[in-house]
Amino acid sequence: MANALPVPDTRVLAVASHVVSGYVGNKIAVFVLQSLGCDVAALNTVQFSNHTGYRQWKGTKVSAQEIKDLYDGLKQSYLDDFDMMLSGYIPGAEAVDAVGAIGRELQEKSKGIPGKFFWVLDPVMGDNGRLYVAEDVVPAYRSLIHHADLILPNQFEAELLSEAKIVDMDSLTNAIQLMHDKFKVPHIVITSVNLDAPDQPPSHLSVIGSSMTSTGKARLFKIVFPSIDCYFSGTGDMFAALMVIRMREAVHHASGEVRFTPSWLSDDSIPAVELPLAKAAEKVLASMHEVLSKTSKGMTKVVDRTTDDMAPEDRVDDKKVHLVRSKAAELQLVRNLDCLRSPSTQFHAKAM
Amino acid sequence: MANALPVPDTRVLAVASHVVSGYVGNKIAVFVLQSLGCDVAALNTVQFSNHTGYRQWKGTKVSAQEIKDLYDGLKQSYLDDFDMMLSGYIPGAEAVDAVGAIGRELQEKSKGIPGKFFWVLDPVMGDNGRLYVAEDVVPAYRSLIHHADLILPNQFEAELLSEAKIVDMDSLTNAIQLMHDKFKVPHIVITSVNLDAPDQPPSHLSVIGSSMTSTGKARLFKIVFPSIDCYFSGTGDMFAALMVIRMREAVHHASGEVRFTPSWLSDDSIPAVELPLAKAAEKVLASMHEVLSKTSKGMTKVVDRTTDDMAPEDRVDDKKVHLVRSKAAELQLVRNLDCLRSPSTQFHAKAM
Repeated sequence: MANALPVPDTRVLAVASHVVSGYVGNKIAVFVLQSLGCDVAALNTVQFSNHTGYRQWKGTKVSAQEIKDLYDGLKQSYLDDFDMMLSGYIPGAEAVDAVGAIGRELQEKSKGIPGKFFWVLDPVMGDNGRLYVAEDVVPAYRSLIHHADLILPNQFEAELLSEAKIVDMDSLTNAIQLMHDKFKVPHIVITSVNLDAPDQPPSHLSVIGSSMTSTGKARLFKIVFPSIDCYFSGTGDMFAALMVIRMREAVHHASGEVRFTPSWLSDDSIPAVELPLAKAAEKVLASMHEVLSKTSKGMTKVVDRTTDDMAPEDRVDDKKVHLVRSKAAELQLVRNLDCLRSPSTQFHAKAM
Repeated sequence: MANALPVPDTRVLAVASHVVSGYVGNKIAVFVLQSLGCDVAALNTVQFSNHTGYRQWKGTKVSAQEIKDLYDGLKQSYLDDFDMMLSGYIPGAEAVDAVGAIGRELQEKSKGIPGKFFWVLDPVMGDNGRLYVAEDVVPAYRSLIHHADLILPNQFEAELLSEAKIVDMDSLTNAIQLMHDKFKVPHIVITSVNLDAPDQPPSHLSVIGSSMTSTGKARLFKIVFPSIDCYFSGTGDMFAALMVIRMREAVHHASGEVRFTPSWLSDDSIPAVELPLAKAAEKVLASMHEVLSKTSKGMTKVVDRTTDDMAPEDRVDDKKVHLVRSKAAELQLVRNLDCLRSPSTQFHAKAM
């Protein structure tokens, strides 16, 4: 099995939320990364009983100071030798700054060796037109993005960062070019895009990605995949964790010396669909699709198990029905490791 | 791969420490449990940068109140439907009481259905004659043990609980009988026993286990295994997590109805070496031995990777050498999943 691991020895710092029960943030990222062979340092930015999609939860956030302290703890014991960093949900602008300082310090440390350190940043701010962080988190991210190697905004977050409205594929690709220009961020993937397009049938979504050229021009690709009609939490976090692995895998298998170039940026001769970023996203979406399909199929069992213990009047109470549905929609990952390791589904990137 | 999972759908509440970097407490238990197919709710009792064996660390403990709150958070959203609970390191007597209350509540909830809930309690208090918790944690554990189904003390912790000195195999087996008598605890395994015995060659350790009979008599078995000459942290936590899985697996494969009996206690006709507890411990030790062997072999690589970045004078500084050694002795688990899932080593329990 060791031979089947997609990446060489890889030490990742994962900064995100922790939930006791369920699968979002670091609770899903750490397992995904570990299952595919990464040694993960998990810096948890909150400890909540469950994700906020349930609309009720208990627990506490970790302060910016504590984030700094934990990182200092790693440093003082030679535990800061990271190959990659994945940053996800961070509660509050001050904490975003603290995590940003960590990323910059790790970059600084390895700057003599191009390609040694790679930072995947998921700018978690909101979705579907709604912010779910404080307003000052947006400028905190804007001042951070130009340090990241790869960012993974959803459509709404891409609007916030580019400060351009996205209404169709043209404005979306324009937003990507704007982000390359503004932040010099080398790699961008916009996740779960739901815009009319002739090549996107109904009940399908797409991701649009780009690795910029040496002159900062976007190299755009698109991958279309079927959507599953259910609201899942944690999909963005799972996508990000899988991108960490598959991006590293792709540059390790790429011809040439891309893994020894700053930010793993491919030579201008490489077309969009041949980019390591496109190869990585194809595999990630295959795993995602399989895990979501399995989750969808397994939901009834979770509902049954849970409602068995409930009073009949509770089973029709709206609030309680929502809780049970949220629980049933938790990603079913641990018994479906094959979907992560060796998905059989295939999606293909197309140039745009 | 799904078919190869050793246990049916199993939801475990794991209460223990979290370290950002490295593998002790929940950081190892959660991965072990998830890799073998359990849905784990991870309630972290601390978040430290690294384990305390480094002799320096940063981070904070979670209060008893927060432990209660997190559990209340689970309860209010129907997330407390656990099949098993694993409790490990808990900081302070008040927090031990809080975790004890959770275990008792889960037991109470399922008391109409024998065998529905099983609590594995690792009474983490100290090792080698030295307490590493506050003194009032000892009586807190003593008042808790009689609720647990399986306890996993090391030799020192067995002395603290039984209040009997252990100097040889006779006094050790006496301590086990005392714990069965005093706490009515059904299953006991004493880990890493290092006592002179004719059947224990040099450089070997043993675990001694017992599942009591219907009249409370110990049914003792012993498993001898080679020790590896290195101080590893987290081995107790890994042992405990694997016991959760393998115990459930063993009762599910046992003939008869043991999994529907209170505390999974086997019929008096079952001899010690045929106990699910003995079968479980055999498999656990096989995995442990393989992971420790792999870790031992991989240590040089970690030392090299770390010292490469160090100034020459730091490489001979005692404190720094200890830090690097501690890092190198972190259990190498994530790239050795086969050792967990399907160890090829075989150890055999003997009756005592």
